[in-house]
Amino acid sequence: MSETTRTDINSLGEFGLIKHLTGKFPLVQPSSKKGIGDDGAVIDNQGFHTVVSTDMLVEGIHFDLMYSPLKHLGYKSVVVNLSDIFAMNAIPRQITVSIAISNRFSVEALDELYEGIRAACEHYQVDLIGGDTTSSLRGLIISITAIGQVEPGKAVYRNTAKVGDQICITGDLGAAYLGLQILEREKQIYLDSPEVQPDLEEQNYIVGRQLKPEARGDMIALFAQNGIVPTSMIDISDGLASELYHICTQSGVGAYLEEDGIPIHPDAQMQALKFSLDPVTCALSGGEDYELLFTIDPKDLEKVRFLPDIYIAGEIVDAKDGIKLHTKGGNIHPITAQGWKHF
Amino acid sequence: MSETTRTDINSLGEFGLIKHLTGKFPLVQPSSKKGIGDDGAVIDNQGFHTVVSTDMLVEGIHFDLMYSPLKHLGYKSVVVNLSDIFAMNAIPRQITVSIAISNRFSVEALDELYEGIRAACEHYQVDLIGGDTTSSLRGLIISITAIGQVEPGKAVYRNTAKVGDQICITGDLGAAYLGLQILEREKQIYLDSPEVQPDLEEQNYIVGRQLKPEARGDMIALFAQNGIVPTSMIDISDGLASELYHICTQSGVGAYLEEDGIPIHPDAQMQALKFSLDPVTCALSGGEDYELLFTIDPKDLEKVRFLPDIYIAGEIVDAKDGIKLHTKGGNIHPITAQGWKHF
Repeated sequence: MSETTRTDINSLGEFGLIKHLTGKFPLVQPSSKKGIGDDGAVIDNQGFHTVVSTDMLVEGIHFDLMYSPLKHLGYKSVVVNLSDIFAMNAIPRQITVSIAISNRFSVEALDELYEGIRAACEHYQVDLIGGDTTSSLRGLIISITAIGQVEPGKAVYRNTAKVGDQICITGDLGAAYLGLQILEREKQIYLDSPEVQPDLEEQNYIVGRQLKPEARGDMIALFAQNGIVPTSMIDISDGLASELYHICTQSGVGAYLEEDGIPIHPDAQMQALKFSLDPVTCALSGGEDYELLFTIDPKDLEKVRFLPDIYIAGEIVDAKDGIKLHTKGGNIHPITAQGWKHF
Repeated sequence: MSETTRTDINSLGEFGLIKHLTGKFPLVQPSSKKGIGDDGAVIDNQGFHTVVSTDMLVEGIHFDLMYSPLKHLGYKSVVVNLSDIFAMNAIPRQITVSIAISNRFSVEALDELYEGIRAACEHYQVDLIGGDTTSSLRGLIISITAIGQVEPGKAVYRNTAKVGDQICITGDLGAAYLGLQILEREKQIYLDSPEVQPDLEEQNYIVGRQLKPEARGDMIALFAQNGIVPTSMIDISDGLASELYHICTQSGVGAYLEEDGIPIHPDAQMQALKFSLDPVTCALSGGEDYELLFTIDPKDLEKVRFLPDIYIAGEIVDAKDGIKLHTKGGNIHPITAQGWKHF
C-alpha cells in the first residue's frame, strides 16, 4: 500500500469513518429499498426466496497482509461470500461488511480495502447495504454477509445428489493453493533477505488465483440459459475432497471420481512439479479455488457436455461403495475429507 | 465459567465443532426454509420486506470476560442485533452467528456462549440459520447478522421525523452505563485484592441492565396492537444524545427535550449520586440501554399516552432551533452528539 499520506482513523471518529468508507457505494439493485444509515437495511425480494451466507476472515489465519494487497483482500472477501450464494443456484444482490481494525491501520489503508470491496460490488452488481466498523486489539477482521435471490424451488442444496448423477467441476483446481505456496516462499525469502525483489511474472495465473479469485456467477447464468438445475451443488473453498465428502455424506451417497476428469491448469501442473507436489493432491486438498462442484441428472448430460469450462469428473454411486478416486494408473483410492484445520 | 472438564477445541475439528455448537438449534420460523448445513440459508419472506442488521463485538473493546459470563454475553450479542430490527418496526426471524476464537477457549466455554445464544433465540423466537466458526490470534470476536420481516410500507426510519412530532422513550435510561461502572470498579478491586468478594446484590437491577439487556419487541407488538406507526425510530445503544442527534440530522429537524421527561430508574438515580455522576448525563451519554427512541405524530398522542413504559420527553422543532435540553432548573442547554469512541 502506498502511504504517502497517513490519516489516523481516530481523526474521523466512528460516524465520520463509516461515512467516509461507505459514501461511494450507490445502490443499484431494485430490491435494495434502504441501505446504510439506519438501524437496518430493507430488502424487497418480492416473489423470490432470500438466500443468506456469511464468512469471517481473520488476519494471520485467512490472509497475510505481507503479500495480500488490501484492495485484493477487499475484493476477495466479497467474492468468497458471493461464491456461497452462487453455490445455492441463487443470485447475490446485497452484502453487509463489518470490520474490526487495530489503530495500526490508517484511513488510506482502509480506503484501499473498501476500493476492493467496491470493485467487487460493481463487478457482481451487488449493493453494500450495511455493516459495522469497530476497533480490534490486534489485526484486521472482516465479516461479510451476502444476501441473494432464488426462484422458489430452484435453490440447489448439498444433500440432494442421487445415485447415477454425473459429477461436474467448473474451471480448474489447485492453482490457488499453489499460488499461496509461491507467496509464502517469497515472504520467507523477503524476511531472510529484504533486498531480493520477487519475480512473480511467470506465476501470474497461479498467484492471481490466490489473490484475486472470481466467483462463478457466469455458471449460474449458463445453467439458467440452458434450463439446467443441478441435483446438488457446493462451492470449492476447502478443496475438492472436502466438498465431495460434504455432498456425499449429506446426500447419503458415495462417489467415483476419475483423476482424468479433474481439471488442472497447465501452469498449476508445472508449478506443482517444481514444488515436488502431486497436482491432483493440490486439487483435492488445496482449497480457495472458488469453483463449483455440482451433480446433474444423467438426462442433462447432453446439455452440459458442450458448455464451456465444465468438466465431467465422475459419478455418484451407492453409499456402501464409498468415495473413491480412480487414478490414471488404474488404481482405486479412498478419498478422505479434509476441511481446513484452523485451530 | 465452571470448567471442571476442559475439552480442547482442536479435538473436535472445524466441522465437528460447528455441529456440536449448532446442533441444538431447531428451526421454528415458517420463513426459515433452510438453515445451517449448506452454502447458504434460504428464507421465504413472502409478502414481507426483509430487514437486515449486523453488529460485531470484540473482546477487550465491547466486553470484558472478567465480568461478563459467557452465557450472558451470548444472550446480549443476539439482543443488540434484534434491537436494531425492532427499531425498524420489524420482527426478527433469523440470525447468523460468526465467531473467531483463540485456542484459550475450551469447547465447554463455547457451549456456555451458545447456551446464551440459544436462550435468546428461544425467548425471541428467532432461528439460527448460519454462521462461521474460525480461530483468532487473540480473544473472542462475535459477528451477528439479524434478519427480520416488516409489512411493506411499515418500516420506520431515522430520517422521517417532522416538526411538531412528540419525542417518546421506552423503559429507562442510564442504568446499563452505571452497571458497567460498578463492574469496572469491582474488577479493579479484584485485581488489587483478589480475596475480596464482590457484593452486587444491591445493584441487581443496574448490573442486570448491563449484562443481560432485553430488546423491546414488546413495544413493536404494542404499536401494532394499537395501530401506531412511529414517524421515526432508533434504538438507544450509544446514549440518548447520540440517537436523538441521528434522528434530527437525518430528518433535517431540531428537538426540544425535557429533562423531566427522561425516564431514569430510582436505582440508577441512587447509584449515579454514589458515583458523583449526574443521572441525566448517564442517560444522555451512557449507552447500551437498548430502549427505543421514537417520534409520533401529535394525533397519536392519546393512543400513546396511556401505554405502559412509554415516556413523552419532548418535541421535534425546526432545524434552526437546534437540539436542546430544557433542564428542571429552567435552563436550556444544547445537546451534542457523542457516539462511542472506539478508537
